[in-house]
Amino acid sequence: MMKNYISENQDRFIQELLDMLRIPSVSADPKFKNDVLRTADFVAGKLTEAGADKVEICVTGGYPIVYGEKIVDPQLPTVLVYGHYDVQPADPYELWDSPPFEPVVKHEKIYARGASDDKGQMYMHVKAFEVMMQHNALPCNVKFMIEGEEEVGSDNLGTFVKENKDRLQADVILISDTGMLANDVPSITTGLRGLSYVEVEVTGPNRDLHSGMYGGAVANPINILCRMIASLHDEHNRITIPGFYDNVVELSKEEREEMARAPFDLEKYKKALDLQEVHGEEGYVTMERTSIRPTLDVNGIWGGYTGEGAKTVIPSKAFAKISMRLVPNQSPEEITEKFTQHFERIAPKSVKVLVKPHHGGEPVVTPTNSIAYQAAAMAYEETFGIKPVPVRSGGSIPIVAMFKSELGIDSVLMGFGLDADAIHSPNESFGIFNFLKGIETIPLFFRNFAEMSKKR
Amino acid sequence: MMKNYISENQDRFIQELLDMLRIPSVSADPKFKNDVLRTADFVAGKLTEAGADKVEICVTGGYPIVYGEKIVDPQLPTVLVYGHYDVQPADPYELWDSPPFEPVVKHEKIYARGASDDKGQMYMHVKAFEVMMQHNALPCNVKFMIEGEEEVGSDNLGTFVKENKDRLQADVILISDTGMLANDVPSITTGLRGLSYVEVEVTGPNRDLHSGMYGGAVANPINILCRMIASLHDEHNRITIPGFYDNVVELSKEEREEMARAPFDLEKYKKALDLQEVHGEEGYVTMERTSIRPTLDVNGIWGGYTGEGAKTVIPSKAFAKISMRLVPNQSPEEITEKFTQHFERIAPKSVKVLVKPHHGGEPVVTPTNSIAYQAAAMAYEETFGIKPVPVRSGGSIPIVAMFKSELGIDSVLMGFGLDADAIHSPNESFGIFNFLKGIETIPLFFRNFAEMSKKR
Repeated sequence: MMKNYISENQDRFIQELLDMLRIPSVSADPKFKNDVLRTADFVAGKLTEAGADKVEICVTGGYPIVYGEKIVDPQLPTVLVYGHYDVQPADPYELWDSPPFEPVVKHEKIYARGASDDKGQMYMHVKAFEVMMQHNALPCNVKFMIEGEEEVGSDNLGTFVKENKDRLQADVILISDTGMLANDVPSITTGLRGLSYVEVEVTGPNRDLHSGMYGGAVANPINILCRMIASLHDEHNRITIPGFYDNVVELSKEEREEMARAPFDLEKYKKALDLQEVHGEEGYVTMERTSIRPTLDVNGIWGGYTGEGAKTVIPSKAFAKISMRLVPNQSPEEITEKFTQHFERIAPKSVKVLVKPHHGGEPVVTPTNSIAYQAAAMAYEETFGIKPVPVRSGGSIPIVAMFKSELGIDSVLMGFGLDADAIHSPNESFGIFNFLKGIETIPLFFRNFAEMSKKR
Repeated sequence: MMKNYISENQDRFIQELLDMLRIPSVSADPKFKNDVLRTADFVAGKLTEAGADKVEICVTGGYPIVYGEKIVDPQLPTVLVYGHYDVQPADPYELWDSPPFEPVVKHEKIYARGASDDKGQMYMHVKAFEVMMQHNALPCNVKFMIEGEEEVGSDNLGTFVKENKDRLQADVILISDTGMLANDVPSITTGLRGLSYVEVEVTGPNRDLHSGMYGGAVANPINILCRMIASLHDEHNRITIPGFYDNVVELSKEEREEMARAPFDLEKYKKALDLQEVHGEEGYVTMERTSIRPTLDVNGIWGGYTGEGAKTVIPSKAFAKISMRLVPNQSPEEITEKFTQHFERIAPKSVKVLVKPHHGGEPVVTPTNSIAYQAAAMAYEETFGIKPVPVRSGGSIPIVAMFKSELGIDSVLMGFGLDADAIHSPNESFGIFNFLKGIETIPLFFRNFAEMSKKR
C-alpha cells in the first residue's frame, strides 16, 4: 500500500529533491550564505507539508538547524532523524559534465552537488515520513534535526544539542549520510573514522623574492613545506608523528578475517580509479586502510605563482590543508595537539610555522546487537531481499560520537548511497533506485523498531 | 651641458615613464594582450620622438620587437641597446601598498610593476639617446631592440635575431636589466646564471575522491608531489638529480677569496628579509649560493581545495612550477633533460607524472678586459665618483648567451637598479636617483666607447 503510494508519487518526490538541489547551499563559502538560509526554509516547508508539528528554523551561532516533530503518543518510542541540508563546495566546476546546481536526471541517476550527500539521503526521510503520515501508519514518535553546517564541522550543533536535551530526547538517532556496498549488497555502517583537520602556513622571507637574486640563499617556503609534509610518512607509509598510533585499537586476527569476507575486488577498484598501483600503510589491505587504520592526507596545497606561464618567484609563504582520519580510540584533540607539536618541531629555523586547527570529529563504533540495528537490518532484508552486511567505513560523521556523549543515544546509520555517487567530487550523483529504496525501507525500520521496542 | 638638460627635463622624463608604467604589459597573462601591444606602440613613439630612424614594430610569433636606429656614420662603431617593455605578473595584488599599474612617486622612488624591471631601466636609454641627440653629441651609431617577451622566456627573440643578423650588426650590446650593489657602491654585472624551468603534474586517481572513503588506500598526488620535491635536495641542501653538478665550473680558492671582498652584511641581509637563519648549500656562503652555485626552487605549487574552510578531498592532480638556476657550463637543455628523467624515475607506480619544460636560458660570464667593460667602468666612475665593482649575479638574462652565439657580440650589463627595488615582488620600485643617474651615465659610456674604439 505504501509501496503503491511511492510509485504514484515518485515523480513529484524527485522533482522536489531537484528543487532543493538547485539551491547552492555551500556552507564553506560565505558567498552562498543566502542560499544556505533559503535551503533551511525549503526543508522546514517540506517538513510542515508532510505533517510535522512545531517546525522551527532554530537560530544558532552559524547556520540554522531545522527542527520538526510528530508525537503520536509520549508512551511510544521516539526516533530522532538527523541529516544536513548544506553541501560541499562544487569546485573545480570545469570538471562537471553539467553545472553542479542545475540537477539533471540521466542514466537513472540524479546529478548535482548534494544529490547524495546529504540532500538526497536526508530528503528520503522527509518523504518516508509523508508516506507514513498519509497512511496513518506512523508507528512511533519522530523528531527531525536537519543542520546546515555538517560540511564545515557542525560547529554549532553541539551547543544546540546541549541546550535542547529535553526536546531532543529519543530512543535512537537515525542517519542516512553513509553508503552501502552495492545495490545488490546492502550494508549498514557500524564504524566511522574520526577527523582532525589543520591548516598550516610556512613563512620564509618577509616578501616574495626573485629566485635569481635569492634562489639558493634563503629558505623557499614551498620546498620546506614539501619536505615537512614528505617527512610525515615513513618508508612503510606509516605516519611519523610521535605517539600518533598510541591509542589506536588494533583489531584481532579474527576481526580482520571477518572483515576480509566483505566482497572487494582490487582489480576493479584500481580500474575504476585508473590506478596502476594502490598505495598505503604496509601490512594492511585496502579495505583495512580505509576503515580500521588512521591516515594523513593533504587536501589542498598552494603557494607562489600558479597562473599561466612562468614566474621566477620565491614566495614569502606556502600553505596546506591537512586532514587525519582517526580510528578508535584516537581523539581529534589529542591528534591535533600531537600534529601541531610535531610540525612546529620539525620546522627548520629558516622558516616560521603556523598551525591552525579546523574542526575535528571523534571516531565511533556503533553496536550491532541493539534493537535499532536489528530493526534496520530486517528492513533492508525485506526491501532488498538480502541481509545487509555490517561494515566499518572510512568517512567521518563526528556528530555520532557527540550524540552519544551528550544525549546518551546510539545512532543507526542507514545509508543508501553508493561509492559511485562521487560525493565531494565533480559529477556527484544519487541513483533513483537508491532514493526510492530508501523511502521504502525507512518506514519498515520505524515499524520494526516500534514493534521490537514494545516486546522488550 | 647634458647634465643641465637632464635637470631641466627630469620631471618630464619621469612623467613619461609613469605613463608607460600605467600600461599593464604582463606578457605571461593573455588577458593583458592589448596592453602589451599598446606598450610596444608607446616605446616606438618615444624612440621616434627622440630622433631614431627606421622605427618599426616588428611582428614576431608572439609579442612584437620594437626596433629603431640612428646611424651617424657607418665607419663609426655601433652600440645595440637591448631592453624589454613587458613586465612580470603583479599578483598577489593585495600585498601592494598602491595598485601596481597606478604608479606613485614617494620617498624619491617610483612604485609600480616594471618601475625598475625593465621599463625604468630601458627608458633610461631612450632618454639618454634624446639627450645626446639634443646636444648633437651622439658619438657613434646606435640601434635599439626592445622586446616584449623577456618575462616569458624571449621565445621569439632568437628567430628575430637569426633573421635580422645584418640589421643588428654592432660592436657591443648594451643592457640595463640588472642591479648594482648600492647607490654608493656601483657595480657592473659580469656573470649571470642560466635557467631551466619546468612545470610538473602528478596524477593519482582519475577523479577527486572523498578522503574518508579513500584516504590511506590510494596515492594522494599532493603527498607524492611533496615527497618527490623534498627528495630533490639532500641533507646538505645539494641537488640530488644525477649528473646535475657534472658540468659546473668550480671556482678556485683565489677566485672565491676575491668574491668574498665584495661588501656583504649577513645580519643586515637576514634582518631585511626577517629571517632567523639563511638556508642553502653546505660549504658555500650566501653570496656564492646566489651567484656561482646552481639552485632548484619551487616557484609555485597547487592542488586540491584551496578555498576558505575545510574540504576533505583527495585531488586527482597536483602541480608545481620548478626552476633551476644554472652556472657555467651547465646548459638548460642538459639540465631540463636530467630533471625530467630523474623526476619520472622517482615517481612511484601509484601515480602518473608529466614534466612540461618552459623556457630556459644559458648561463653567461662577460669579459672584463674588453673596451666595452672599460668604457662602462669609466662612465660609472665619472658619475658616481667611485670605480664600479665587477659582480656575478644570480639572475638570468638568457638572451646574453644567445646574442653571443648568434651575433658574435658581447654584452655589457650596465644596471642601475637596487636589490631594494623588489623586482618580481609586490611594491616594485625604482629610485629617481637611479633613473637619472642612468640617463647621465649612459652618454658617457657612448663617448668612452667611441673614443676607445678609435684608438684601437
